[in-house]
Amino acid sequence: MSNHSVADYDKELETLGQKIAEMGGLAEKMLSDAMDALVDFDTNLAQATINRDPRLDLLQRDIEENAILAIARRAPMALDLREIISAIRISGDLERIGDLAKNIAKRAIKISTDVRIPRAIIGLKSMHESAAILLKDVLDAYAQRDVERARSVWMFDAELDALEDSIFRDLLTFMMEDPRHISFCAHLLFCAKNIERIGDHATNIAETVVYLVTGESLPIDRPKGKTLLSDSPSTVE
Amino acid sequence: MSNHSVADYDKELETLGQKIAEMGGLAEKMLSDAMDALVDFDTNLAQATINRDPRLDLLQRDIEENAILAIARRAPMALDLREIISAIRISGDLERIGDLAKNIAKRAIKISTDVRIPRAIIGLKSMHESAAILLKDVLDAYAQRDVERARSVWMFDAELDALEDSIFRDLLTFMMEDPRHISFCAHLLFCAKNIERIGDHATNIAETVVYLVTGESLPIDRPKGKTLLSDSPSTVE
Repeated sequence: MSNHSVADYDKELETLGQKIAEMGGLAEKMLSDAMDALVDFDTNLAQATINRDPRLDLLQRDIEENAILAIARRAPMALDLREIISAIRISGDLERIGDLAKNIAKRAIKISTDVRIPRAIIGLKSMHESAAILLKDVLDAYAQRDVERARSVWMFDAELDALEDSIFRDLLTFMMEDPRHISFCAHLLFCAKNIERIGDHATNIAETVVYLVTGESLPIDRPKGKTLLSDSPSTVE
Repeated sequence: MSNHSVADYDKELETLGQKIAEMGGLAEKMLSDAMDALVDFDTNLAQATINRDPRLDLLQRDIEENAILAIARRAPMALDLREIISAIRISGDLERIGDLAKNIAKRAIKISTDVRIPRAIIGLKSMHESAAILLKDVLDAYAQRDVERARSVWMFDAELDALEDSIFRDLLTFMMEDPRHISFCAHLLFCAKNIERIGDHATNIAETVVYLVTGESLPIDRPKGKTLLSDSPSTVE
């Protein structure tokens, strides 16, 4: 086992956990604000969302550096090591969730001057509601080290992907109806993809929670997650 | 400094380097095969590309686990620590490049039955040529610890993004010309985005090479890289 003052060490882990909690709250806020900005064509809210991203990047960099130093200094074993590795992995997923939310915000600004097709945005709202629940659940699962709750996130992600599949087809239909819808809907295609990827990162985090608590290594070929990052229904149907 | 047998340690680092070299070669092969499959409507080659991905995932998992263990066991400092951290980061970027190439291959299969618009694929071919050069250059820069070459990759990535911007607009134009082009071109929109993201991961690797050799921490707000992952010209113009 590692040779350290338990008090100091616990404090280090506690600090890592606090920073991940801050990242999680920030990522959730960025996602909901980006979607509100998209739905309400609110460019000010979109810009405010974009402005939050550097803080998320800074926190991730900080978590990664401190985690690596902790491993080098403490040579932790077993659960302690998994705690630190999990902090690195989860901060990476949360940072990318922030990037994806920021991208939705940038698109909200871009399409704010396009012809509006409110019905094209309805499906994205449902996708967002599902993704927001996934994200909240997985952050709670991490905070409570709740393996069962983490596994449920994995399952729900499949619903999010099915939803994206139908939204993808709806958006293509709107494009075919009227060429003037094409640019607007093309941006929404990417927004739907971003939300699906956010669900995928939530699934990554769920897997990390399972790894953290049980020590089980993550499967290479999982039904969700990495595969979905690149192979969502919309990409293959 | 770390207290280890230099010979053993060097062997560990050498093994990490060899595995990254294998990942790099595999990622390059997947990208070129995926693009050939897309251009030639070759579904067999597309499937063969998809089948290579698990090997890339396995190598990344292996590199990450061995790197973390090396840090815990050796408590390396300075350059030794940067070598190991860089291996973790680069293997993560190469694994994602493989996912993006796999996604292009999946789309090649999907659109193989659609109405073909060869002129719509020409722009993607140029994007691929640029991305393939970026990838080769950055892998060479890593192998040779060549900071200047790494910095040049960073610069070239801007050209790739400009290219994607014009391809994005061309594809929208093809969609507007004929509704029967919409599904085909929608898949190509995502292929173009995938290639742009591959260029971005090459930029991430370039930054890791600079960090590895110079010890400079990566900038939070870089002109390329993380920003491009989410904010390519096609997403904001």
